[in-house]
Amino acid sequence: MKIGILGLGLIGGSLGLDLRSQGHHLLGVSRRESTCQKALDIGSVDQASVDLKFLASADVIFICTPIGLIVPQVEQLMVYLPMKAIITDVGSVKAPIVEAVSPLWQNFIGGHPMAGNTDVGIEAAQRNLFVNRPYVLTPIETTPNRAITILEEIVRSLGSIIYHCQPEKHDRAVSWISHLPVMISASLTATCLSETDPEIFQLAQNLASSGFRDTSRVGAGNPELGVMMAQYNHQALLHSLQQYRQNLDEFIDLIEQEKWQILEDKLKLNQQQRPKFL
Amino acid sequence: MKIGILGLGLIGGSLGLDLRSQGHHLLGVSRRESTCQKALDIGSVDQASVDLKFLASADVIFICTPIGLIVPQVEQLMVYLPMKAIITDVGSVKAPIVEAVSPLWQNFIGGHPMAGNTDVGIEAAQRNLFVNRPYVLTPIETTPNRAITILEEIVRSLGSIIYHCQPEKHDRAVSWISHLPVMISASLTATCLSETDPEIFQLAQNLASSGFRDTSRVGAGNPELGVMMAQYNHQALLHSLQQYRQNLDEFIDLIEQEKWQILEDKLKLNQQQRPKFL
Repeated sequence: MKIGILGLGLIGGSLGLDLRSQGHHLLGVSRRESTCQKALDIGSVDQASVDLKFLASADVIFICTPIGLIVPQVEQLMVYLPMKAIITDVGSVKAPIVEAVSPLWQNFIGGHPMAGNTDVGIEAAQRNLFVNRPYVLTPIETTPNRAITILEEIVRSLGSIIYHCQPEKHDRAVSWISHLPVMISASLTATCLSETDPEIFQLAQNLASSGFRDTSRVGAGNPELGVMMAQYNHQALLHSLQQYRQNLDEFIDLIEQEKWQILEDKLKLNQQQRPKFL
Repeated sequence: MKIGILGLGLIGGSLGLDLRSQGHHLLGVSRRESTCQKALDIGSVDQASVDLKFLASADVIFICTPIGLIVPQVEQLMVYLPMKAIITDVGSVKAPIVEAVSPLWQNFIGGHPMAGNTDVGIEAAQRNLFVNRPYVLTPIETTPNRAITILEEIVRSLGSIIYHCQPEKHDRAVSWISHLPVMISASLTATCLSETDPEIFQLAQNLASSGFRDTSRVGAGNPELGVMMAQYNHQALLHSLQQYRQNLDEFIDLIEQEKWQILEDKLKLNQQQRPKFL
């Protein structure tokens, strides 16, 4: 099969490596000539170009650009494509993308591979990045079965665990376990920076250990990505943040009122329930 | 030197292993006979007993019990000790302990080795647990120099990095980087458990990855320890929680009002400043 990849970063590059090793013919497109060359060098694609037209012959195209570029890129790309071409994306928010693209292209299926690491760019591309990782597909009522079957087969060949759901349910779910953690983690570092006593501030820096490190990690990731999550998953994230604030207020109240037994019960429930998410 | 350890868990047991290997004579006391035997078996102490009197001949005594038992244990122990005996503790909160013990025992120095792991008990004791880890000492104005010098020498021999500060400053510093993370991390799991749509709840569990795992980790630790932090570091933790809540509200406002540039600037500042704490 001819598979096109638009956006040759960590995800696009890694998809290319795996799919090419299975005998597919990979066509890559990047805005930069140097990225095209790197993708060729590491064997992520068979051919590469900076020209969108280059993907005209692909049977399936993965849009692997940053979220904000997905819809405009599909709009530009579709004029070159035959109607049967299947388009999918890898954006971490689904409802606004599916809403915008579905009326334009029937054979579109929103996708979200839950894989990655802290590195970015084609240099970070690696084999088997998606093995045993969740890969969410969000077809809608009007999505042709043929397109779903073909895309599922490709995703299954990556070793991913496939989940189907409505785009809105995806966005709610990731707002709890992915986007909310970014914001509460970011607030931790921001709060520690507010200490005004220089001796305590220095001491806090010297004493910070794995507890601070882990809890503050995701909030100090790529700032552009953090903003895009908030922009594109706006309502779900705000809902999660407001629920979080209520829960935090409960903890504060319990501590203020010295209700130690209830606090202990809440912490015990957390300890019991958290493994369900791991 | 004769060194006593009261409380043979992870910290007490590990202290014994290191100090005994340096030629000190280690006396251990635990409430349980079986723990005494295990401490002897792994070579953490030279002699062990369930009787506090057993520590009467020690030059320096480390109190390694849970926080809530430190003051009562010192009160019971002191009747057997000569005045020159040096007492220290390893509790993660310092001001209430130092306030309570200092009037009772002049040669007392509060201490806090910032080391540990997720395992507990004498079975988890290990060599070199304190190497390159911070070890805070909180002597006060009336603490004799001789006691400080002797304790510092022992702590330095563990390979720890020694910090001196007032007990209150210690408690403020750890409230930022250790106790606050526990509560905001616990609130994350508690919030995710509040989702009422079973499909979204299941999906969130299936999709949760390293972001959720790391951010929720310290909040799902030992519930009794979480409560003790809140009890003993009450005021500092409440102050930190209120500052955190203000910061979180700022993040929520920025997202609600779609002030993306300011949000990005805040996330960038975090990304720049967080390494200072690592």
